[in-house]
Amino acid sequence: MNVSELGEFKLIEELTKVIELRNPSSLKGVGDDAAVMDYGDKQVLATTDVLLQGIHFDLHYTPLKYLGYKAAAVNISDICAMNGKATQMLVTIGISKQFTVEMLEELYSGIYAACDQFGVDVVGGDTSASLTGLTISITCLGVADKDKVVYRSGAKPNQLICVTGDLGAAYMGLQLLEREKRIFLSQKDNEGFQPDFATKEYILQRQMRPEPRVDIVRILAEHNIVPTAMMDVSDGFSSELLHICKDSKVGCRVYEDRIPIDYVTATQAEEFNMNLTTAALNGGEDYELLFTVPVELHEQMKALAEENIHIIGRTTTEDEGACLVTRDGQEITLKAQGWNAFKQE
Amino acid sequence: MNVSELGEFKLIEELTKVIELRNPSSLKGVGDDAAVMDYGDKQVLATTDVLLQGIHFDLHYTPLKYLGYKAAAVNISDICAMNGKATQMLVTIGISKQFTVEMLEELYSGIYAACDQFGVDVVGGDTSASLTGLTISITCLGVADKDKVVYRSGAKPNQLICVTGDLGAAYMGLQLLEREKRIFLSQKDNEGFQPDFATKEYILQRQMRPEPRVDIVRILAEHNIVPTAMMDVSDGFSSELLHICKDSKVGCRVYEDRIPIDYVTATQAEEFNMNLTTAALNGGEDYELLFTVPVELHEQMKALAEENIHIIGRTTTEDEGACLVTRDGQEITLKAQGWNAFKQE
Repeated sequence: MNVSELGEFKLIEELTKVIELRNPSSLKGVGDDAAVMDYGDKQVLATTDVLLQGIHFDLHYTPLKYLGYKAAAVNISDICAMNGKATQMLVTIGISKQFTVEMLEELYSGIYAACDQFGVDVVGGDTSASLTGLTISITCLGVADKDKVVYRSGAKPNQLICVTGDLGAAYMGLQLLEREKRIFLSQKDNEGFQPDFATKEYILQRQMRPEPRVDIVRILAEHNIVPTAMMDVSDGFSSELLHICKDSKVGCRVYEDRIPIDYVTATQAEEFNMNLTTAALNGGEDYELLFTVPVELHEQMKALAEENIHIIGRTTTEDEGACLVTRDGQEITLKAQGWNAFKQE
Repeated sequence: MNVSELGEFKLIEELTKVIELRNPSSLKGVGDDAAVMDYGDKQVLATTDVLLQGIHFDLHYTPLKYLGYKAAAVNISDICAMNGKATQMLVTIGISKQFTVEMLEELYSGIYAACDQFGVDVVGGDTSASLTGLTISITCLGVADKDKVVYRSGAKPNQLICVTGDLGAAYMGLQLLEREKRIFLSQKDNEGFQPDFATKEYILQRQMRPEPRVDIVRILAEHNIVPTAMMDVSDGFSSELLHICKDSKVGCRVYEDRIPIDYVTATQAEEFNMNLTTAALNGGEDYELLFTVPVELHEQMKALAEENIHIIGRTTTEDEGACLVTRDGQEITLKAQGWNAFKQE
């Protein structure tokens, strides 16, 4: 069915009928001029992200459901990065005329899947026709106890630098998808084309279905650990770490041999003849949490290795600079080679 | 200067350096993964709107500063429609490569102008390259006392229907702009083209620089009046009133001779040979407030005529239907002919 046949109000009704409000703070969701929330004496967190066709995603290899899931997940990840719990979401979508209601439902089903998984209510939004490509803009609201919100600016010299999960996998997954797309497009008769993804599921999943580290925020709270500074790894590990260093006025030493990298990421980098450390430090879209904690927590953090939290370095004074210490002991100045939407071809 | 030369982080720095946080509830604005707000025991309001080039605006006749102002204003208006005070805003923009930093600054200057005027803090956002046209998505947050939030669903039969300001002017302004654009495009040599806008300033201003009725929310509060239902007139008066009727399960009678229409709107409708009442009821983009109050407030509301609040009808039981009572006493069923983005050419 074509979107224009349904009309905007019916369409919204259609798309939002599956929503059930779960958080007691969600007093009023979709269906009025604004969403109403009651937080008592909690702090309110709000973040927004836009995804544009051809810039942030490629519909050649991104199923709409995955796209919706990812769009929601990356916003929830931003709330995690503040040490908060995502609670509400506003979803704004612009779609071209070729877009059908079924396609839009597919997109929303991914958004709702992420929201279900992480306990977030979709409380509002806006859907419009677009003369051009697909546009997705999401705002996520969250809460945190007043003394638990973590900024980028709170790190002090000589604290531990930790990162969760592993790095570089999402980037290698993207490289793999791009290669298969090139092969697909270069074949004259690509009807029976089957991309070669065997044994590569992990890096594909990391690229297409990133999971915000809601679990890490919970684990830290259970252990009464409040990081001094925190960010999620979206643009790239180096870029985020340099943000923390700049805003906290500290330097850092991170150790190459401590950077957590999955086996599939490593073999894919080798297959593509790419530098693995570069991919891990600058690849981006890992949506892991990067944070600093007081050095007194060293034993406690070491014990959390089983939760996939890794100590990878320490902060220094600002004048010592921000460096990667390589396996052979050399210090290389860290540079932000993070993803820049404005430099895309 | 080209946006790509500056890079995303520098660009954001450039665009946000003029921001000063004004609300005590704005604990943390731009510069972290999420904005942090503290509302105590207030209710939080959140709304979002997307504006897409070629759908919601035409850069032929919309200066970027006006576009920014309007994008912000319509979101603030949604918070007014809940009887709340807009406090924070998140701004997301997608821009094509042709867009320069100066153009983006011009756009933001309009957003900031609206925020300055109405006491709103820009606390976050996202800016990205777009392969196609300009995309603006704004989320606005606001607060209201717990017992003062007004929904669409609170009207009861036999209450007064009120509307502020006047209707149809923004629509006639748009018609005028479209006519001048057609003339401009049809002229072979349009170098010296001067659009004919003399004496039409009012309707142009209503189209290009709509003002959210923050003043009305304040006036109602000063008089201890809490509407039973309220909306802002964005899609069109009839469409909004039918929303209130549906959600409140009431009918209505509005009187044609009570519909407030400005003189310039009326003369322009005559010049274009358009039905004035139709334009006023269905034109949209007035951003006036439409609300209902208990009939006991009749004298008090009449006294507020000097504040540009007009009693234009009353609610009825649902089975009496929703009708316009014409000047000659006929009852015509109201229909929503509101603007539908999906039906645009």
